[in-house]
Amino acid sequence: MPIYEVQSQRGTLSPDARRALVESITAIHAEETGGPVDFINVIFADLEPDSTYTGGKPSRPVFVRGQVRAGRPDEVRLAIMTRINDAVMAVTDVDPMRVAVVVEDLPSKWAMEAGHVLPEPVAAEEDAWFAKVGARPA
Amino acid sequence: MPIYEVQSQRGTLSPDARRALVESITAIHAEETGGPVDFINVIFADLEPDSTYTGGKPSRPVFVRGQVRAGRPDEVRLAIMTRINDAVMAVTDVDPMRVAVVVEDLPSKWAMEAGHVLPEPVAAEEDAWFAKVGARPA
Amino acid sequence: MPIYEVQSQRGTLSPDARRALVESITAIHAEETGGPVDFINVIFADLEPDSTYTGGKPSRPVFVRGQVRAGRPDEVRLAIMTRINDAVMAVTDVDPMRVAVVVEDLPSKWAMEAGHVLPEPVAAEEDAWFAKVGARPA
Repeated sequence: MPIYEVQSQRGTLSPDARRALVESITAIHAEETGGPVDFINVIFADLEPDSTYTGGKPSRPVFVRGQVRAGRPDEVRLAIMTRINDAVMAVTDVDPMRVAVVVEDLPSKWAMEAGHVLPEPVAAEEDAWFAKVGARPA
Repeated sequence: MPIYEVQSQRGTLSPDARRALVESITAIHAEETGGPVDFINVIFADLEPDSTYTGGKPSRPVFVRGQVRAGRPDEVRLAIMTRINDAVMAVTDVDPMRVAVVVEDLPSKWAMEAGHVLPEPVAAEEDAWFAKVGARPA
Repeated sequence: MPIYEVQSQRGTLSPDARRALVESITAIHAEETGGPVDFINVIFADLEPDSTYTGGKPSRPVFVRGQVRAGRPDEVRLAIMTRINDAVMAVTDVDPMRVAVVVEDLPSKWAMEAGHVLPEPVAAEEDAWFAKVGARPA
């Protein structure tokens, strides 16, 4: 965790745009949460042509939907959403009205990674978790 | 928002069925919530053959999973789910047992569109939001 | 419900691995919840090459994300997540650090299947639901 899923119609985001988004979403989440980079996932779920509609008409949206651990202040979420929106706008010419960013809280205990239930997003629990899974946070 | 995602195996929904579903889901959400049509998204996430199983056996389900802003009465959700289920049944011959409709609440502040955090689903906040983003609600 | 969605890059899971995962996820959910097998969905959402990144670098993760009815004890979720993680590890050689399992609660009334709002996960309500939809639980 987190998992950020970018949904758009195939071709909306060029390979360069995708690489740039991976870098910015990863950096934004790490900077705003203060968490380690090593477990930040960004995936692209491409949709087929004729698969995206807004207001009943064909559209070319970009949706970024993140699932993050619950427990951080509202300002963190707002900063993440604002910066991800800007990052999408910087690499594509889609209509700004069609860019949506969702950052959804998930209780830590609803998720497991590397075989261990996730820690609450506080340093002491995270340190203990990293010790358990044997990973070195970046 | 909302974002309604229709998941089915490629070929389960004909192009005509998809067009009909876009129209009905858009109309249903607009009518039941009283909200503007312009920001209602319907997307199709096609799954490959051999990618859908129910009870451990190959199946051909249709899942409609919507994320909507939290804050509306239960009757609105029930009406949306019932009518979407009927709309799916009207355009495909899949087993009615294999049609699932999920309408998931999302706190407005968990989502941003057009660069602005979404308003609560009440008229005064929505009007202010539309003024900010410079869109005219349909 | 439930719906378990397995996300991985195309090719990460062999056809045999997928069949094995369908069987284990279905059995695990049924055993741990005591619920009927007939409505347990497992679907695979394949991602394209160059579509999955962790820590900013290309990765080959396996995510299993389930949506289940809310209302069961924490131990049930923990058992489901632990056993699904083990099942994934048993059929693929992906890095254990890149396996994530999410089991997300959904209020029963947020979902409809076979045209009827889902029952709370207690026997009496489930029996009434099965009678309504005319299905025989397996």
